[in-house]
Amino acid sequence: MSGRYAEELVDAGFAVEVADAPLLHDGLNVADLAHLLVLVERGVVPSRAVPGLVAVLTDADRTPAAEFGYDPRHGEVYNCREKRFAAAIGRDAGWLHAGRPRREAVRIALRLRVRRDLCDLIEAAAAFALAGARTAAAHAETLMVDQTYLQHAQPSTFGHYLLGMVHPALREIERLTADLDGVDRSPAGAGGVNGSPLTGDRAHIAELLGFAEVIEHTRDAMWASDGYTALVGHAAGLATTLDRLAEDLEIWSSAEFGWVHLALEHTRTSILMPQKRNPYALTMVRGEAGVLIGRATGMLALAKSPSARSDNMIFSYGEVPRSVDLATRATRLMAGVVAELEVDAAAMEAALRGGFSQAADLAEHLMVTAGLDYRSAYDVVGIAVRRAAGAGLTGADLTREDLESAAAEAGLELTATLGDLAEVLDPARIVRSRDSRGGAAPDEVRRMAAACCSVAEKARDAVRARRAGFDTAEAELRRRVAALG
Amino acid sequence: MSGRYAEELVDAGFAVEVADAPLLHDGLNVADLAHLLVLVERGVVPSRAVPGLVAVLTDADRTPAAEFGYDPRHGEVYNCREKRFAAAIGRDAGWLHAGRPRREAVRIALRLRVRRDLCDLIEAAAAFALAGARTAAAHAETLMVDQTYLQHAQPSTFGHYLLGMVHPALREIERLTADLDGVDRSPAGAGGVNGSPLTGDRAHIAELLGFAEVIEHTRDAMWASDGYTALVGHAAGLATTLDRLAEDLEIWSSAEFGWVHLALEHTRTSILMPQKRNPYALTMVRGEAGVLIGRATGMLALAKSPSARSDNMIFSYGEVPRSVDLATRATRLMAGVVAELEVDAAAMEAALRGGFSQAADLAEHLMVTAGLDYRSAYDVVGIAVRRAAGAGLTGADLTREDLESAAAEAGLELTATLGDLAEVLDPARIVRSRDSRGGAAPDEVRRMAAACCSVAEKARDAVRARRAGFDTAEAELRRRVAALG
Amino acid sequence: MSGRYAEELVDAGFAVEVADAPLLHDGLNVADLAHLLVLVERGVVPSRAVPGLVAVLTDADRTPAAEFGYDPRHGEVYNCREKRFAAAIGRDAGWLHAGRPRREAVRIALRLRVRRDLCDLIEAAAAFALAGARTAAAHAETLMVDQTYLQHAQPSTFGHYLLGMVHPALREIERLTADLDGVDRSPAGAGGVNGSPLTGDRAHIAELLGFAEVIEHTRDAMWASDGYTALVGHAAGLATTLDRLAEDLEIWSSAEFGWVHLALEHTRTSILMPQKRNPYALTMVRGEAGVLIGRATGMLALAKSPSARSDNMIFSYGEVPRSVDLATRATRLMAGVVAELEVDAAAMEAALRGGFSQAADLAEHLMVTAGLDYRSAYDVVGIAVRRAAGAGLTGADLTREDLESAAAEAGLELTATLGDLAEVLDPARIVRSRDSRGGAAPDEVRRMAAACCSVAEKARDAVRARRAGFDTAEAELRRRVAALG
Amino acid sequence: MSGRYAEELVDAGFAVEVADAPLLHDGLNVADLAHLLVLVERGVVPSRAVPGLVAVLTDADRTPAAEFGYDPRHGEVYNCREKRFAAAIGRDAGWLHAGRPRREAVRIALRLRVRRDLCDLIEAAAAFALAGARTAAAHAETLMVDQTYLQHAQPSTFGHYLLGMVHPALREIERLTADLDGVDRSPAGAGGVNGSPLTGDRAHIAELLGFAEVIEHTRDAMWASDGYTALVGHAAGLATTLDRLAEDLEIWSSAEFGWVHLALEHTRTSILMPQKRNPYALTMVRGEAGVLIGRATGMLALAKSPSARSDNMIFSYGEVPRSVDLATRATRLMAGVVAELEVDAAAMEAALRGGFSQAADLAEHLMVTAGLDYRSAYDVVGIAVRRAAGAGLTGADLTREDLESAAAEAGLELTATLGDLAEVLDPARIVRSRDSRGGAAPDEVRRMAAACCSVAEKARDAVRARRAGFDTAEAELRRRVAALG
Repeated sequence: MSGRYAEELVDAGFAVEVADAPLLHDGLNVADLAHLLVLVERGVVPSRAVPGLVAVLTDADRTPAAEFGYDPRHGEVYNCREKRFAAAIGRDAGWLHAGRPRREAVRIALRLRVRRDLCDLIEAAAAFALAGARTAAAHAETLMVDQTYLQHAQPSTFGHYLLGMVHPALREIERLTADLDGVDRSPAGAGGVNGSPLTGDRAHIAELLGFAEVIEHTRDAMWASDGYTALVGHAAGLATTLDRLAEDLEIWSSAEFGWVHLALEHTRTSILMPQKRNPYALTMVRGEAGVLIGRATGMLALAKSPSARSDNMIFSYGEVPRSVDLATRATRLMAGVVAELEVDAAAMEAALRGGFSQAADLAEHLMVTAGLDYRSAYDVVGIAVRRAAGAGLTGADLTREDLESAAAEAGLELTATLGDLAEVLDPARIVRSRDSRGGAAPDEVRRMAAACCSVAEKARDAVRARRAGFDTAEAELRRRVAALG
Repeated sequence: MSGRYAEELVDAGFAVEVADAPLLHDGLNVADLAHLLVLVERGVVPSRAVPGLVAVLTDADRTPAAEFGYDPRHGEVYNCREKRFAAAIGRDAGWLHAGRPRREAVRIALRLRVRRDLCDLIEAAAAFALAGARTAAAHAETLMVDQTYLQHAQPSTFGHYLLGMVHPALREIERLTADLDGVDRSPAGAGGVNGSPLTGDRAHIAELLGFAEVIEHTRDAMWASDGYTALVGHAAGLATTLDRLAEDLEIWSSAEFGWVHLALEHTRTSILMPQKRNPYALTMVRGEAGVLIGRATGMLALAKSPSARSDNMIFSYGEVPRSVDLATRATRLMAGVVAELEVDAAAMEAALRGGFSQAADLAEHLMVTAGLDYRSAYDVVGIAVRRAAGAGLTGADLTREDLESAAAEAGLELTATLGDLAEVLDPARIVRSRDSRGGAAPDEVRRMAAACCSVAEKARDAVRARRAGFDTAEAELRRRVAALG
Repeated sequence: MSGRYAEELVDAGFAVEVADAPLLHDGLNVADLAHLLVLVERGVVPSRAVPGLVAVLTDADRTPAAEFGYDPRHGEVYNCREKRFAAAIGRDAGWLHAGRPRREAVRIALRLRVRRDLCDLIEAAAAFALAGARTAAAHAETLMVDQTYLQHAQPSTFGHYLLGMVHPALREIERLTADLDGVDRSPAGAGGVNGSPLTGDRAHIAELLGFAEVIEHTRDAMWASDGYTALVGHAAGLATTLDRLAEDLEIWSSAEFGWVHLALEHTRTSILMPQKRNPYALTMVRGEAGVLIGRATGMLALAKSPSARSDNMIFSYGEVPRSVDLATRATRLMAGVVAELEVDAAAMEAALRGGFSQAADLAEHLMVTAGLDYRSAYDVVGIAVRRAAGAGLTGADLTREDLESAAAEAGLELTATLGDLAEVLDPARIVRSRDSRGGAAPDEVRRMAAACCSVAEKARDAVRARRAGFDTAEAELRRRVAALG
Repeated sequence: MSGRYAEELVDAGFAVEVADAPLLHDGLNVADLAHLLVLVERGVVPSRAVPGLVAVLTDADRTPAAEFGYDPRHGEVYNCREKRFAAAIGRDAGWLHAGRPRREAVRIALRLRVRRDLCDLIEAAAAFALAGARTAAAHAETLMVDQTYLQHAQPSTFGHYLLGMVHPALREIERLTADLDGVDRSPAGAGGVNGSPLTGDRAHIAELLGFAEVIEHTRDAMWASDGYTALVGHAAGLATTLDRLAEDLEIWSSAEFGWVHLALEHTRTSILMPQKRNPYALTMVRGEAGVLIGRATGMLALAKSPSARSDNMIFSYGEVPRSVDLATRATRLMAGVVAELEVDAAAMEAALRGGFSQAADLAEHLMVTAGLDYRSAYDVVGIAVRRAAGAGLTGADLTREDLESAAAEAGLELTATLGDLAEVLDPARIVRSRDSRGGAAPDEVRRMAAACCSVAEKARDAVRARRAGFDTAEAELRRRVAALG
């Protein structure tokens, strides 16, 4: 066949498509089995031809993609299949094309593939959320200074911090689950584009394929790409959430911070420098986020096109499963990292105590006890902090005298009783005071962590059930086709 | 204040932030009103200071952003407000900072803004869907050849085609509505990041601000950007759906196609060429889609960062509202274009009849009547079509003799009765035969169009109600603050 | 080795890296050969160990990547090599690490690969430019109406149009050649990052590797990614130029236009619709442009990172060669499409003559002969055109009477002699009148086409010479290493 | 005029374009002046009309954009100008349209604008390179541990590190200078698209406008966007280089590192937390890099379109100047940051000395003196380092005994004389040993810094001269037009 095609077309066209054959092979087998079953049910295929068709499709179904003979010299993936079938049973292979263009077969295959890929990604995200929530609960009392601009801000805990990464993951699970609902719909029975009178009830084919629903409009079923664009965007979104955590952990793994250490099994050594133990896991996650940002953009760029141009679907065949797979790998890795992370609570607490992150609480205390407006209280504390820092002191060292003297410099007078400053300046007390909803108080962190676990477990169980449903439907389909032969 | 800042910092920092002041002004006013009310309710602010605070906030609320005095030499937006308030009431302005950093104020303001912007975008999308579904229903019988690769494929109708653009818009409405649910949540009461003991019940502040829910985790409430990334991605997704329609219509507006004409009010003339009437609306929509793809990418790139770095939120202040606004404009424009579009049904039908788009139906007919497998039937029709095309004929001209002769060339024999080919080849009959779910049969198109209208109307009514709820909450808040003074 | 690594790290780390082994294998072989030669020359490796090292490296150099044993369970690519070498010669394999980290080896390998990939891309772009310029010259007199917004604008030729696509390709060749100059520089001798006292003169190693220059700064040599980001951006830029041409040709290939037909070898048939011949080449090029836009974005997103994080280089190992390869395939395809394109000159001319694209020239003529300002002349011609169009006439049908009557409607009077309108309205004359630099006059198009051919040939010859230089250097290196053993 | 346009078209079309009027105003004035001059020179405009035309154009040239009356209800930018001119001098304003469409006027204006914007960006990049090279030279002996994965790698200096950021900036200057050469070319005289017989010698108009060259092909001159796509990509590339430095400095500014401190004038305070001094400059630069990645992507997405669609140029009018401006601001800021940066050399050195970054040098020493292959030497040192680290020691504490004992554990024997380990382990000596080209040896860093300064100064002087040339040409043009009236 390649004689009729220019070499440059084979290289830039069929070869590019055939590189995706391993991604589509299983789905095409299932799509063909269902199509044959429908054609037989509806009496389209003469009985004489049925055993041969069952035989070639069953054989295809049992042949791994790598051994199937996908070869760009024979055209793209569907052409390769056609060629193999015709080689086996001659003209009878032609019945498979009845009422269904190549496009419909591959669209179905892509959905069969991506619905499983999405289940994997959602399950990985749930595992990450679970690991994060459990580790967070375990560190609900591990004091850590919260930072902005990587500067000490206020006393908090590692548990509160980490749980803040779980929430966006749960939201991304919601988005990905909506995407899965969108993907798990059947485009079958669209015919050329406007429906086929041959294949009959579209709901029936959808059921054979284990799809939850039918895509209503047949042209939309063939050409819509918004669902794929959205899901790759969400996969990239999840990856950037993981990236954010990875970048934080990378900094905190430095010798200068020394707050956390990755488990040995998530690091690798340097070839040149014997002293190094590199947090390789984190760098891979960051890189994967970067790559996925590009993939998400590429999907949008592909979609900017007139309608019914094949390219944005042809390239989706590879881009979508590969993107979801890359996101799944990164997510599983961060789940492992978080589950096995070694936290140096003493180093974290020492860093906190070495600074002045209690300053805002002190200013609030001044405001409340001394009746200063917050800006004035802030100015007073600011002066006291600068002086103390200059003297090599820390937040806990601040005294009433420091504040009075600072107030004087600010042109204010402090007359009120200020109470026990040691308590005011105690980071653990400060953290306990954050007991309103969503705050850093240990009990609140544990409450939220438990809630997150529960949501993540439900999401995990739901996709497992869904995947089992796919397995059941496909097994039943195979059984029914086998019964034809 | 600017004396203390480097000029290059003012230019690359404060000036960039202050350019977004008009977008945030209203929200900051509302956020400040609510914060004051809470502080007063909780007895944080001494009564002496209350009237002054009410006065400056009420004044701010009545002053348009352009007259407020936002000026990068005074710092960013929040600094400018602080400066104005302090100029009016001196140190008492400092009470506003109690228990709330700049960050929380601006985060609230952004959400107040974006929830309205999203309502506008969803309403515009609903209007587009409605216009599209109505025009589709009106053209349920307007014959048009469906195309792939811009080559004639199969007989269809303009109504079926157009409705295929409505479905992805409805799905984007679903995504945007989920985004709105995510945005319409209150970050208030997060304090520095881990909660504030001063401001109390976070649900109460949320209610004052008219938010549907509280964002659970306080650090997440301050720093999560996944919701913004997702919604700009969805806005770009909607724009690419509009782009797709615009690109089709642009081609069909050419003299060579002549299938559609934009309403005069959606075109513009050339300055040099007096004969030209350019479909300017379509070009703007395509450009807006291109710009939005970049905006969506930029949001993802901003999010790739360690956590609690201010930049991805600072730049979101401008990027998110502006992106949603641009998408809204494009969507409203396409709603207008579709509503007012002039369709040349005769030209469409003539194009269809000038080609061979009935060929697949003819091949199916051969398959069914003559017992040929589809590939063989396809080969026979292919030969007949090539001959007829060479002779300047069209699809309707094909005869039984043509097919017999073609079959002979293909090494096949046609013996069966083929029935009335004129009927087989009638495009209107072909279209009517697509009466399974989602097909091009006129009744099915009308049924789906009605269903789409209903969904779109519900979405429209829901956001209108939601927006009214925002108005009510904000009015009530203003009333209560006024009562303080 | 994998026992020590978490499974999820193998999957998201080593497996991702090892997937790029086939891209890096040759370059790593060459890099290792050069490193060994330098170590031997400088007396670092004891003579005893040399034959074994020569043997394992020569063996590696002769072993295809697929048979080499790259396996993520052994770590990433470099680890796999180390393992194979140690298996063969034991501890002596350890000499290869002297003075050179993994990083440097792979950085060299990437540059050795990409400099060849870029030569291929530049050669393909030159071939495209040549094909375009030749086809343009052949159609210097093929009348075509130039379009904006896909509306008839002014008379032109297909040759002038097509040559307008050659110029941006030549500019992209300039950019890619600058990129090649940047890539064809040696990072070798950087040691850990700050130089190595062991490996000596960096210019010598550069010469062994056939690099044109040394990268001055050693840390920059290891970590800079700007050159890769730029070149993938330029590859995407070239692809969008090709996309633009492909989108035009796709529209003009429609039955409604019928101006061009792709050669049979660049199309493919439909599986369902026997009458279809789809311009598959064009759709693949468009899709490849979309994908490459995403790749270019991904490179930028990867680069947004602190310095000396491995991820942006690790992911560049795969992204850069694959992106350049995809761009090369698309470029070769469009070179073929343009060389073999069938142009229907009669259909093009008929379309031109069926419209009013002479209107601007007529208005200019009115301005010059009748002394009207251009806006007034434009108004007059506009009225005349609208009337003529309403009467089913074309541009050539316009008469002096039409213009006088239109002028009257516009409130103007035409008294001057207008000369021979038939000549004014003759598209061929109009085109000939565009004889200033860069215009559509046939001689000018032929002159420009010849100049473009000359530039393209020079670019092609230059990269061929460059590639030959790489071959020579690598052959000499192999010879010298063989002489060691 | 707006009565004839749909409100949604005004909002999504003209209003979007008019928002860019301030960017184009000066360039349109200059373009119009030159066009008038040419029309008068060539006798196209009757002398009667000249004074009025000179008057309106001179008036426009003196009127700031904000006062000009650009208003979307009158159409886009060019329409607004036309309206104002016609209001002043009636039909005579119509002469300005002779031989030149709106498109050409705006294309010229954009180039006039962007060539200046690019000069600003290049000058800012040169200032950054200069500041970086000077600060690097000043810190050529400031010991710092080089890091990968943010883990200690090898001894180096801050000067060597910083200079590694200057080199990519210099390369980006080269790319941007090539872009400037591309932008500084005249599209004038393209007429509709294929040249204009009215305006004559294109080189003459180019000279009037101060362009260095003419864009050869007239259609290319009107529609090519590759130059803009490339330059925004390069601006984003420069921004990611700055981002990389900013991310490093942000980490090193943390209390835990404490290696550098931004000048006070590049920081800002927290509103809530009195102890905080945030490196605001760095966060803005990172955000600007993120935004620019999106802008670069958007340009590519805009370019993916058929040819001669207005949108990619219409949106370039705003996107390109704004992107270049944002990059310029970020670049100036980083130039300031680097020039004023406070480096804590003692803290840097202490960090270095607290670790084991001499390990690779020690292993090389073992290899050379003890005849061990590098992998074996590495194993020995690795064992010694792990033991020493466990004992709370640092690199300088390692002794011959430690190594012998480690060797024994590794199953090796150390018999050779190892020389003075204190010298081997001295970081300053290690750094001095890196004296091959591009290494960290202080003299080499100073040599490279001087060379970088020289290149940066030349680039700065060249763009200043170029900008002066623009000023001269425009002044001369104004003089000549004034002389007409």
